[in-house]
Amino acid sequence: MLFPTHLKPAEPNTATSLENERRKATFSPNEMETFVFGKKKLETREKLLKMMRAEPEIFGMENFYHLSRVEKLDHCFKQELRLVQLLREGTITKEDIMAFSGSFGPQGPYDLTRGMFIPTLEKQGTEEQKEVFLKPALDYRIIGCYAQTEMGHGSNIRSLETTATFIEETDEFEINSPTLTSTKWWIGSLGISSTHACVIAQLIVKGKNYGIFPFVVPIRSTVDHKPFPGVTVGDIGPKFGFNTMDNGFLSLDRVRIPRFNLLQRYITVSRNGAVTRPKNIDPRVTYGTMVEVRAHIASNMGEKLAKAVTVATRYTAVRRQFGEAGKPETPVLDYGIVQYRLIPLLAKAYAMLGMSVEFFEQYIKCTAAIASGDFSLLKEMHAVSCGLKRWSSETAVYGVDTCRHLCGGHGFSQFSGLNEFFTDIYPNIIWEGDNYVLAQQTTKYLVKAANGVSKGEEVEKNDTTNVMRQFANNGASNKGAYSWNNLSSKQVANNNSVLLDILAYRFVCMVNNMTERIHVKGESFEDLLVTSQQVCTAHSEYIVCLYFSRFINRLPSNSPLRPVLDLLFAVSALSFLTRNTGELYSLPESGQITSQLVTDLESEYLEKIKLLRPQAVPLVDAFGISDEQLNSSLGRYDGKVYEDYMQRALNEPLNRDGTGDEIRKRFFEKYIGPTLHGGKGGAGVSKL
Amino acid sequence: MLFPTHLKPAEPNTATSLENERRKATFSPNEMETFVFGKKKLETREKLLKMMRAEPEIFGMENFYHLSRVEKLDHCFKQELRLVQLLREGTITKEDIMAFSGSFGPQGPYDLTRGMFIPTLEKQGTEEQKEVFLKPALDYRIIGCYAQTEMGHGSNIRSLETTATFIEETDEFEINSPTLTSTKWWIGSLGISSTHACVIAQLIVKGKNYGIFPFVVPIRSTVDHKPFPGVTVGDIGPKFGFNTMDNGFLSLDRVRIPRFNLLQRYITVSRNGAVTRPKNIDPRVTYGTMVEVRAHIASNMGEKLAKAVTVATRYTAVRRQFGEAGKPETPVLDYGIVQYRLIPLLAKAYAMLGMSVEFFEQYIKCTAAIASGDFSLLKEMHAVSCGLKRWSSETAVYGVDTCRHLCGGHGFSQFSGLNEFFTDIYPNIIWEGDNYVLAQQTTKYLVKAANGVSKGEEVEKNDTTNVMRQFANNGASNKGAYSWNNLSSKQVANNNSVLLDILAYRFVCMVNNMTERIHVKGESFEDLLVTSQQVCTAHSEYIVCLYFSRFINRLPSNSPLRPVLDLLFAVSALSFLTRNTGELYSLPESGQITSQLVTDLESEYLEKIKLLRPQAVPLVDAFGISDEQLNSSLGRYDGKVYEDYMQRALNEPLNRDGTGDEIRKRFFEKYIGPTLHGGKGGAGVSKL
Repeated sequence: MLFPTHLKPAEPNTATSLENERRKATFSPNEMETFVFGKKKLETREKLLKMMRAEPEIFGMENFYHLSRVEKLDHCFKQELRLVQLLREGTITKEDIMAFSGSFGPQGPYDLTRGMFIPTLEKQGTEEQKEVFLKPALDYRIIGCYAQTEMGHGSNIRSLETTATFIEETDEFEINSPTLTSTKWWIGSLGISSTHACVIAQLIVKGKNYGIFPFVVPIRSTVDHKPFPGVTVGDIGPKFGFNTMDNGFLSLDRVRIPRFNLLQRYITVSRNGAVTRPKNIDPRVTYGTMVEVRAHIASNMGEKLAKAVTVATRYTAVRRQFGEAGKPETPVLDYGIVQYRLIPLLAKAYAMLGMSVEFFEQYIKCTAAIASGDFSLLKEMHAVSCGLKRWSSETAVYGVDTCRHLCGGHGFSQFSGLNEFFTDIYPNIIWEGDNYVLAQQTTKYLVKAANGVSKGEEVEKNDTTNVMRQFANNGASNKGAYSWNNLSSKQVANNNSVLLDILAYRFVCMVNNMTERIHVKGESFEDLLVTSQQVCTAHSEYIVCLYFSRFINRLPSNSPLRPVLDLLFAVSALSFLTRNTGELYSLPESGQITSQLVTDLESEYLEKIKLLRPQAVPLVDAFGISDEQLNSSLGRYDGKVYEDYMQRALNEPLNRDGTGDEIRKRFFEKYIGPTLHGGKGGAGVSKL
Repeated sequence: MLFPTHLKPAEPNTATSLENERRKATFSPNEMETFVFGKKKLETREKLLKMMRAEPEIFGMENFYHLSRVEKLDHCFKQELRLVQLLREGTITKEDIMAFSGSFGPQGPYDLTRGMFIPTLEKQGTEEQKEVFLKPALDYRIIGCYAQTEMGHGSNIRSLETTATFIEETDEFEINSPTLTSTKWWIGSLGISSTHACVIAQLIVKGKNYGIFPFVVPIRSTVDHKPFPGVTVGDIGPKFGFNTMDNGFLSLDRVRIPRFNLLQRYITVSRNGAVTRPKNIDPRVTYGTMVEVRAHIASNMGEKLAKAVTVATRYTAVRRQFGEAGKPETPVLDYGIVQYRLIPLLAKAYAMLGMSVEFFEQYIKCTAAIASGDFSLLKEMHAVSCGLKRWSSETAVYGVDTCRHLCGGHGFSQFSGLNEFFTDIYPNIIWEGDNYVLAQQTTKYLVKAANGVSKGEEVEKNDTTNVMRQFANNGASNKGAYSWNNLSSKQVANNNSVLLDILAYRFVCMVNNMTERIHVKGESFEDLLVTSQQVCTAHSEYIVCLYFSRFINRLPSNSPLRPVLDLLFAVSALSFLTRNTGELYSLPESGQITSQLVTDLESEYLEKIKLLRPQAVPLVDAFGISDEQLNSSLGRYDGKVYEDYMQRALNEPLNRDGTGDEIRKRFFEKYIGPTLHGGKGGAGVSKL
């Protein structure tokens, strides 16, 4: 289908408008990009972009939104094969592939062999097992998955129904799915790809259940890829998103595997069925893995939110609607209510990216301490990681949703780039610990720590307990004891360290209050489940700002990047404080967070948002997300929104010359024609 | 693909669990259903279900989630044709088709000819025009659409770029799309179906622009359905949801139509170009149409939320996770944090359905008054309708989202029935007035009314101004002047009329505060945009509860349905009050909404939620939504969740015998095989 080529967009056109926005920058977007992501990451980005641009027939995504699920899978399998070839040629590395998947292309079907199968072998296999399983997996000579979740059990993995029974006669384990609900379900890379599954099952030796452990089970022949006898395996069907992944199901009917295939790092079963656990392993190390996974999620969510904010910022900066008579219409980003919804997300994307860097450093520090036998940092690190995974996934998923809404009707088109992307990241609020369950874990730690501090017990020192102690020591009746006392609301809003103090004070008061209700008034944790969610949020918001401020402090004090970063910090902090002012109103009076201060902070917040407005486009440019990654008409770097949008629409299968004509002809002959001409008055129609 | 048939779900099984839930009912779900929906609606439901069950090859939806977009359209065109045939046979009515579309099947591609083209002809056409256009449209001898939105203009329709210039020489209008951005966009039923478009364009006569008016433009031949010369028309491509609708684009290159085709109810152009407007038409009547559309959205949103709540309630009642050792695991609906997220949505679904009935009655009352020349109810009705459209779409869309999250991982599967459904209803927060824009309209009315009341001006009497007056007259310093004064928090929570008073008081104080900031302190509306959103919400929440209480009061006071409805009311009201307690904390001290009362109300709220828990399953049964409408493994009436889920997965195209084998073979030969065997160590693989 052709569109009249003489037609141009109305003036002032979107490309020019975007150029004008870029002139407002008070800092260098390139410098900012380097500061936020680091040189190494930017080099990887460039390398991957070059790779994609060199082979558009493999990596091109322009037509992706038009594909059916099977076509999408075809696209992704093709991509996966090419990545493996480039890996084998030495053109790219394992790490490049990890960076590619999900960030440049959609999540590929081999993603779980990389993301879960291989790491499990690395962490839980013996050297001998690594030789047999890990080596071919690293070279993609086998493809594996991590089969833990069952149809009937997700969160409560201790109650998984799949069994692995030791058969002494043949020196084997018999893996069995005893019920319908024991069917392994949701397993990524299993539906079509995997030759092997790392199956989590109840280990039963001589009638005794030892709990759940991982077993490597060959499920499909590497020769013809047919399932082995006793194995029923398939794809679980279409999902809200993530449809380029072959999430699968697996039922095992008394399938035998060699005893060797139990991953033996944490447990061994001898030839005659003696079960032993190595003595030098502290079970707490598994927490370290969870922390790492959550740190990755937090950082990943930062990039995803940045992507959506890029689209929404560029588009609202060029989309015009209403305005003064006789003048060009006003860009919608100039409207207060648009700024109020968008700018805080821009700030939070920076906060998320910045705090993730610190979060990883904390994790590395903690891991190093653990390696030397010091577990003192682990508990807080674990609590922080639950909270940050929850905060970042919730903020990103619903932030993307807000960005879509901000783009108006066009946000609803797949060509906005915000929709498949939204559905793909959605599961982050559920997997690796459902967000509501995670909050309870964090709050349990906080209440325990607060109780310890209040009783003057020896409680380990960390970022969380430090402020608990600080506010316990500050005399509550001591007027002017807090940093915000005797400051005007403007002074408060302009002082990031004071804002951080208020965030700390709020969370400490909230957790102290909860601790008192439990440990003094005798209420149960179960009755305080809502409070528990609120306390977790307040703690996470403090930690986000704490880590983000440390990240900013890496810059020299005279860095030209600081003013805008400080503003981003202030908007994040004020957004947290004004989110539900009931939390501020209910703080102890002695803290002097007066209702006037609360109202004034709300106004200061709006002021700061306005101050950030002119930097919005340069700030999203600094995320450095390429058009290929955005795959969005609305978010194009050059601002040619409507030209691109029309081009994509013309390419809709229903519109294509030839094949589209055929489809429409068929619809007309079968359905529309008989509708028009089937009635009594059909004859008189054609003259209209 | 076959699944081992001997495998059953783990015990206690989901079907038995659901049966047990039903035994807890303290009321008759059938009676409740009749009260909420009315006999007539239930009869229509039954008739449509019978129709669907009689022709599963036409109306069956089991395989819908597996279809590509073209296949889905095929399904819906087939359905549309059958509906038209049944209409022509006299088996079903026009109203039945309206009730069917979107509620029983997905939104069909003829939906906008029914929903917008026909009503526009009815309202804006003359009798002669109705004869020529409306009559064939009603009989589907022509199919039309309503082409208003353009690529570059949605909200600000006054700036639409399309022109309709009167050509006196030939007695025609020339309809023209002068730019790329003037392309009509998003137009439902246009992409593939329509033969005619009602095009909204700037009327230009003798060089003068008269503003926008509707023109009937033939766009495709009814004989062969080919576009006419000068017409470029197509489908706008894939969307987040709503993909069974052929939203289209349309560019008109100086297309001529007879002068007759301008819809002439509100304007006429004579043969020699004299423009006249009939004198007996008050332009305010168009507000009536908007109110009606929004009332329909509110009621529709109630049904949608009810559907999602049905799925989530049934599934959380049977899904078990964790629990005491030695006992069956606990249904997740027994966990406080699940109840806290789900039960208020159940209550709000009832509130939405109940208030919609009253809303329609108000609308009818208002229309009748208008017909007799009394416009006094119109302004408040319009403000209320903006607020209720906003509240109900926001609550339903994000309520459905919460229901999905409540179903855990399985909520993410298309087979949950919550996903395509979510994406289909999503645009309700955008169309018919973006929710953020609507809030401003409501609040503008409220501030004006409050200013009038405060100055003692004559302000029309209605539900909104009545409480404004009530709280203006109540002496603020008069202790015990309010109904909640001198009551314990338990008494407050148990008294629905007192809860309603607090909701009224909160909104009145908030709007008075805003009015003072504008009319006394001189702040601008633009600076109070956030406050404006909050005020609108507080007003809508009051109106929802007011209308819902009136709806409940239709029942005799001894009706066995009352206790549970009163509980649903209380949970709705308390959810509104505790949503952001900052609003309560900042009320004037004289009102005596003490911080103790606020905290206590939060506890009472949780208590009420617990009280509703046992009635949850009977309450969703009372929505009477059939399995066909739910199209959900998780929400099945019989509770056979996992059996159905597995059956649907086996039917995934990738798993099917024959065609699925072919696809997988192709993937293996082209991609997976070369991955496994392309490396250096390929030879050693097969023994694993």
